[in-house]
Amino acid sequence: MADRIPSDAPSPAPLLVVGSVAFDNVITPFGQKERILGGAASYCSLAASYFAQVRMVGVIGNDFGDEHLERLRSRGIDLEGVQLDESGPTFFWKGKYHENFNRRDTLDIQLNVFENFRPDLPESYLDSEYVLLGNIHPALQMHVLDQMPGDPFVLADTIDLWIEVERKALLDLIKKVSLFVINDSEAEELTGEKNVILAGRKLRQMGPETVIVKKGEHGAVLFHEDGLFALPAYPVTDLRDPTGAGDSFAGALIGRLASRRRTDFAAIKEAMIHATCVASLTVEEFGCDRLESAGVETIAERAESLLRLISPE
Amino acid sequence: MADRIPSDAPSPAPLLVVGSVAFDNVITPFGQKERILGGAASYCSLAASYFAQVRMVGVIGNDFGDEHLERLRSRGIDLEGVQLDESGPTFFWKGKYHENFNRRDTLDIQLNVFENFRPDLPESYLDSEYVLLGNIHPALQMHVLDQMPGDPFVLADTIDLWIEVERKALLDLIKKVSLFVINDSEAEELTGEKNVILAGRKLRQMGPETVIVKKGEHGAVLFHEDGLFALPAYPVTDLRDPTGAGDSFAGALIGRLASRRRTDFAAIKEAMIHATCVASLTVEEFGCDRLESAGVETIAERAESLLRLISPE
Repeated sequence: MADRIPSDAPSPAPLLVVGSVAFDNVITPFGQKERILGGAASYCSLAASYFAQVRMVGVIGNDFGDEHLERLRSRGIDLEGVQLDESGPTFFWKGKYHENFNRRDTLDIQLNVFENFRPDLPESYLDSEYVLLGNIHPALQMHVLDQMPGDPFVLADTIDLWIEVERKALLDLIKKVSLFVINDSEAEELTGEKNVILAGRKLRQMGPETVIVKKGEHGAVLFHEDGLFALPAYPVTDLRDPTGAGDSFAGALIGRLASRRRTDFAAIKEAMIHATCVASLTVEEFGCDRLESAGVETIAERAESLLRLISPE
Repeated sequence: MADRIPSDAPSPAPLLVVGSVAFDNVITPFGQKERILGGAASYCSLAASYFAQVRMVGVIGNDFGDEHLERLRSRGIDLEGVQLDESGPTFFWKGKYHENFNRRDTLDIQLNVFENFRPDLPESYLDSEYVLLGNIHPALQMHVLDQMPGDPFVLADTIDLWIEVERKALLDLIKKVSLFVINDSEAEELTGEKNVILAGRKLRQMGPETVIVKKGEHGAVLFHEDGLFALPAYPVTDLRDPTGAGDSFAGALIGRLASRRRTDFAAIKEAMIHATCVASLTVEEFGCDRLESAGVETIAERAESLLRLISPE
């Protein structure tokens, strides 16, 4: 079994992760890599696997070798919900980051089998108490929730594309979300508020119980009914490839909550600390490599170090 | 006597503040104000006056009415070092902030009596144990230190202009500085490092014992031999005029240290919390108005609230 960060709960709750699985070509100022494992579901699941029992849902094509499945499997991730569609290749994305990493251009995108993806859940996933809806089309995110008989804790992520072309579906979706995670520029796009504090408050009025606005290298802010929490980023000095940072953050965040079976203010703050550290590992190498090899000790050390970084004592 | 935030030291140490005194015309998206009291020395001194006994050094011209001196005096600020130069008007600056406050244009600048300013210290100021060198020419900052017989704790601030045109003098100056405070874009300009963590470390290698890099709405990072401390900004939702935010931060920071007679890692962290809160007050109104009227209770409340904002518990 894959190693996990210890939790104070007797056993972690099962966590359902839904999103894209992709091959990425990534170009950064530090070099480039071709056909590396990517997609929100991959990053989210690997990140969450350090904390909870992950049940993954996604689609792969006829070019997806077993070695990639084995990478996920060896982190203890349940792949029953990963559909194999023999009719074409796996989702493909090619992107290039600029000098300061603040901007990236998509150079090529081929949806391939992802175009007809429908996240139907295996019977065995239906009792998942925690759900991570990766940044896929909000109608697909809703389709996942529609299948769940219970009342799971739901974290949803999104991207600017859905704010621009599927605003109504997205607004419907976030009404059903427990924890909505969004970056600062998307928060501004969705609310019209430039000020992060006002944007976060407005987002909570739009439905989600709790909101986290991510500010990249400047950290993240939590908006909860019990108060605000501002957390700086982990001090990364060796940024290589930001791809998957947000997905890793979301995966580790809800993975930690599921592992503790807690979703109160203090638990979300504690989970943000882990999520920040896991995301900091992801960006230190291309693709999932560093995330996959990090190990629980490194994550725990970073969490200690981040706590010292923010301690006013 | 002006009200002060209580300190755990028996009596605050005297604090010398040197900088410009100005009249500002400020234009922001919220309106404009003409000929309001400004300049680094004014903001620094008013901010520090909530904590310590301030001794101010600067120059005013023949247009500087007594009502402005009275504003400073009523905050308990010692004005013996403020020189009256009858030969011309006070330093004048006119600036305009853009929509998001991230950029400002200087529309007019008239040095006036500031052009021949030489910060000669009154005899009674020479025993100051704490010194704040506002962002004036580095040769003038050095002139202040040259007059001090003792070994005071020195905080220095600067602006991009000196990095561009007086780099050598600035590099000489910061070797003698205990605490160098600089904003992120200036830190990059001075070190060539885009990454704030690397830039801060490099700055410490250039001489100052301790460095704080300010990131505006994203807070500030402290680089100290005992470690790093990252502090988010106070969550301001009512930004009116950012003028003087940096000066207020520096003034409150060293004011707090002087009031506690402590300059260790924990004391600097605690002072940063107060500095962040005082700066947050300054920007909520044009000029010094909010800073001046804030009162110790409001500052103490904000410090409590900022501590809650960063608490992981």
